[in-house]
Amino acid sequence: MADKPIVANNQDLRSISPAEFFEKNRHLLGFDNPIKALLTSVKEAVDNSLDACESHKILPEIFIQIQKINETRYKMIVEDNGPGISKEHVARAFGKLLYGSKFQTFGGKQGRGQQGIGISASVMYGQLTTGKPARIITRTKGMKLALVQELKIDIKTNEPQIITETTIEWKHEHGTRIEIELEAKYMEKKASVVEYVRQTAVVNPHAKITYIDPEGQKTIFERVVEKLPKEAEFIKPHPYGVELGVLLRMLKETSTRALNSFLTTEFDKVGATTAEEILKTSGLDPKIMPKLLSVEQADKLIKSMHGCKIMSPTTTCLSPIGDENLKKALEAEYDLEFAFAVTRPPSVYRGNPFLIEVAIGYGGELPADGPVKLIRFANRVPLLYQQGACALTKSITSVDWKNYGLQQSGQNVPNGPAIILVHMASVWAPFTSESKEAVAHYPEIIKEAKLALQEAGRQLQLYVGKKQKKQLAVRKADMFKLYAIELSEALSALTGKPKEPIHKQLNKLTEEMLKLGAIEEEEAKSAEEKAKPKRKLGAFKGVDEE
Amino acid sequence: MADKPIVANNQDLRSISPAEFFEKNRHLLGFDNPIKALLTSVKEAVDNSLDACESHKILPEIFIQIQKINETRYKMIVEDNGPGISKEHVARAFGKLLYGSKFQTFGGKQGRGQQGIGISASVMYGQLTTGKPARIITRTKGMKLALVQELKIDIKTNEPQIITETTIEWKHEHGTRIEIELEAKYMEKKASVVEYVRQTAVVNPHAKITYIDPEGQKTIFERVVEKLPKEAEFIKPHPYGVELGVLLRMLKETSTRALNSFLTTEFDKVGATTAEEILKTSGLDPKIMPKLLSVEQADKLIKSMHGCKIMSPTTTCLSPIGDENLKKALEAEYDLEFAFAVTRPPSVYRGNPFLIEVAIGYGGELPADGPVKLIRFANRVPLLYQQGACALTKSITSVDWKNYGLQQSGQNVPNGPAIILVHMASVWAPFTSESKEAVAHYPEIIKEAKLALQEAGRQLQLYVGKKQKKQLAVRKADMFKLYAIELSEALSALTGKPKEPIHKQLNKLTEEMLKLGAIEEEEAKSAEEKAKPKRKLGAFKGVDEE
Repeated sequence: MADKPIVANNQDLRSISPAEFFEKNRHLLGFDNPIKALLTSVKEAVDNSLDACESHKILPEIFIQIQKINETRYKMIVEDNGPGISKEHVARAFGKLLYGSKFQTFGGKQGRGQQGIGISASVMYGQLTTGKPARIITRTKGMKLALVQELKIDIKTNEPQIITETTIEWKHEHGTRIEIELEAKYMEKKASVVEYVRQTAVVNPHAKITYIDPEGQKTIFERVVEKLPKEAEFIKPHPYGVELGVLLRMLKETSTRALNSFLTTEFDKVGATTAEEILKTSGLDPKIMPKLLSVEQADKLIKSMHGCKIMSPTTTCLSPIGDENLKKALEAEYDLEFAFAVTRPPSVYRGNPFLIEVAIGYGGELPADGPVKLIRFANRVPLLYQQGACALTKSITSVDWKNYGLQQSGQNVPNGPAIILVHMASVWAPFTSESKEAVAHYPEIIKEAKLALQEAGRQLQLYVGKKQKKQLAVRKADMFKLYAIELSEALSALTGKPKEPIHKQLNKLTEEMLKLGAIEEEEAKSAEEKAKPKRKLGAFKGVDEE
Repeated sequence: MADKPIVANNQDLRSISPAEFFEKNRHLLGFDNPIKALLTSVKEAVDNSLDACESHKILPEIFIQIQKINETRYKMIVEDNGPGISKEHVARAFGKLLYGSKFQTFGGKQGRGQQGIGISASVMYGQLTTGKPARIITRTKGMKLALVQELKIDIKTNEPQIITETTIEWKHEHGTRIEIELEAKYMEKKASVVEYVRQTAVVNPHAKITYIDPEGQKTIFERVVEKLPKEAEFIKPHPYGVELGVLLRMLKETSTRALNSFLTTEFDKVGATTAEEILKTSGLDPKIMPKLLSVEQADKLIKSMHGCKIMSPTTTCLSPIGDENLKKALEAEYDLEFAFAVTRPPSVYRGNPFLIEVAIGYGGELPADGPVKLIRFANRVPLLYQQGACALTKSITSVDWKNYGLQQSGQNVPNGPAIILVHMASVWAPFTSESKEAVAHYPEIIKEAKLALQEAGRQLQLYVGKKQKKQLAVRKADMFKLYAIELSEALSALTGKPKEPIHKQLNKLTEEMLKLGAIEEEEAKSAEEKAKPKRKLGAFKGVDEE
């Protein structure tokens, strides 16, 4: 072949816009099929609404509606009472992929979105499948009228195209509404929009969510907690979580003028003493200008940073739901006999703080046979797909549930009338794909989740154990009654007294024993009832027709 | 809350560069851990080398070396005899994510790369973990000297930074060499670099691959086939695979001036008659300027395109390995008793042509107990991770292998001394993630793979059946010999003749029966030997020290 002329032909080489890439690979973002596409779109919009409200200290009121256009086409509407978006940002916030406020290179805080892709991907999917622009209404506190934009994405450039722009009077003083028409399929089954909304209500008990399905049926998920969750604070990167390339960028971008102040200023948990120790181990001069550090010097610095004993990261970047709230919310959404919740203390994987919360509900409306209901969450967002690929599932199946009153064969999902909820809150949730459906298998995460599950499991075992004891007592009493006639005859023969009064007395005795048990049970139940919040199971089956 | 001042705070909204996004989400690209990072880097570089050679009709000669720097750091070197890259493209080809020649929006052809991310991601990973630039040497036919660039990626802008640039004398007239230092771990186990190289040799029998491991041990995988595979041709998009948003872009970008010529010019398998039928069904005027079509009209057009009977897509965009070559390559790499390969005719999923090839090897060096060895490929690239998530695995486990001479419990991977190879060739391989490790579960793909596996399975069954028959014959003869003394005594008594000659004759008879069988077997074996190519099992265990 070598003697043939070989001319390098590189004229096809070109830039590919992120929009082009993700349009063709839309399954990576959760738009694999029409059922999932609808769910993903709602999820991305609601994530944004909740994040916006919370970051501006507004108790969220979210309105979600799915309208049927025809058999294969639906319109999704999500409206919030958030702060609104200022005019210069609207088009890019919804019409440009990889644009947002939540992507952090150095450090960060817990939030629902973390990629800057989500909602623009929904706009792109709508446009790809229906050719229609998305419609945005938004109003900030300062605006007299609300801004209305119809938006498309220019796929070739990944820039927004404003199709129309007007202003209107709007009922809300501030907030945002998005409408997207898209190819979709609506189903009321597992991993459906309604299931997503219900689960979102469970882990966001401070939100009021109104949902109108394609039949026009309205369901209101009232607030269970009247207080916003503790705000997550931004934290600087922890030395253990930083890699060499990132350190090099930090060295270049810092405004500090000496290595020791660089360390104490730019990193979490590095005070003067720790900085001194890091620098001593690395053999570097504390007075060097950070910008002047060579790659080799930076390599020494990072090895020393990773080798030194440094306190665990600050955990104010996390905003747990809290065991009390979680228990309340679970009981508000499901009719249960027993519920218990655990919030673990924060822990760390690869320099990122995280914590695990677990809730277990038992009995009541839950079916006694078949596998328990698992619900998984990351940063208060339900994970409805890829259960098998998720570290949270792995932690559930690796617990020995036979110890805790449930049935289980091998390392499978246990069986019984229970619901198991696991929530991972983290400054950076390590999802296995852009569609954010499963948490990656970090051993630290699995271990923490397992500890939380075991703690909740022990409470479950106490309850189930007590219940079984009571059932045993009733069975014993029944048995006693069965033999009461024979017994009274025998006692009558022994004592010489008539058998009828003896029989009566024996019966009375067992009745009283059982009554005593029943009263105790009633008392316990009514105390539980009182503790239950206003939102009821009925809320989910709401019947208001629009 | 409503009476508190709410000020929308959007100043954090900003663009995120694809490099920033993928640096933080590097696990999405296959850089989850140090073992996988090394493999992924080699894979991306070799994919590029093979694609470049083939597209310029060069028989590939690839050199791969892994050098150990220290316990956690390695240098990867990949060199090819490809066309080289012209100077203006080098930096962006290796130092910019989402830049390449293989990403196609409309239509396409089979190729290894299809994203424009791979090799730049490896450069980025090297820089992130070691702070070092990648080193590129490249020379095109016209260049007097080879160009040498040291490259980094500016993460904030996703643009290449040329650190140094020189020229050198180079042994190759044309070709490219890339060197990347990266944090890595080297292991010789499943899913290792050496396994990757070996599997690559199997599905690229036209390539010569030299591999030097960290110990300096050199292995040469010689060519088994001296001919380049049939070149895949670019095909236009098939109407069935086009969505509304893409059609709208095509309408805008076309240079045709009427709808009927738009259809016949821009689509695969649309001639004048089909165009006429599509337009008639849609009710659109054939003379409309494509650019002037409204969204509603385009929607009518696409519904009609999807509804009309149109011939299956052109399949010259595919370049199968071929059953003969596949069998030869499998036999060259593994010491087997039996091998058989099948290349299925092309089929279609979502408008994309694809075809399945299967090879089965049996016996020889393969262990008799435990699961069979599965090897999966997409467009001639080995898939070493995520076996459980792959449609090709699914198709293997859904075949009933007990029918074909292997053991199997339920729908698990079968057991036995066999290797099963499945190759999917497609204009667009639907990977489940950017790391390209598993094929998505399209029913059409699973069905085709199953048919191919069953066809190969029937051949396996014939072979295993024959083998079992022969073993049975030997066992019968042995049994016969055991009873020959008793038998000859009985015959002697019956006939009155001496028993010794009878016994001798009986033994002779069984010997001859067995000899006859052995000769048949030998003949079959030597015919097989002649058909075997030069490359031998030994090649893999090469011992030349460098």
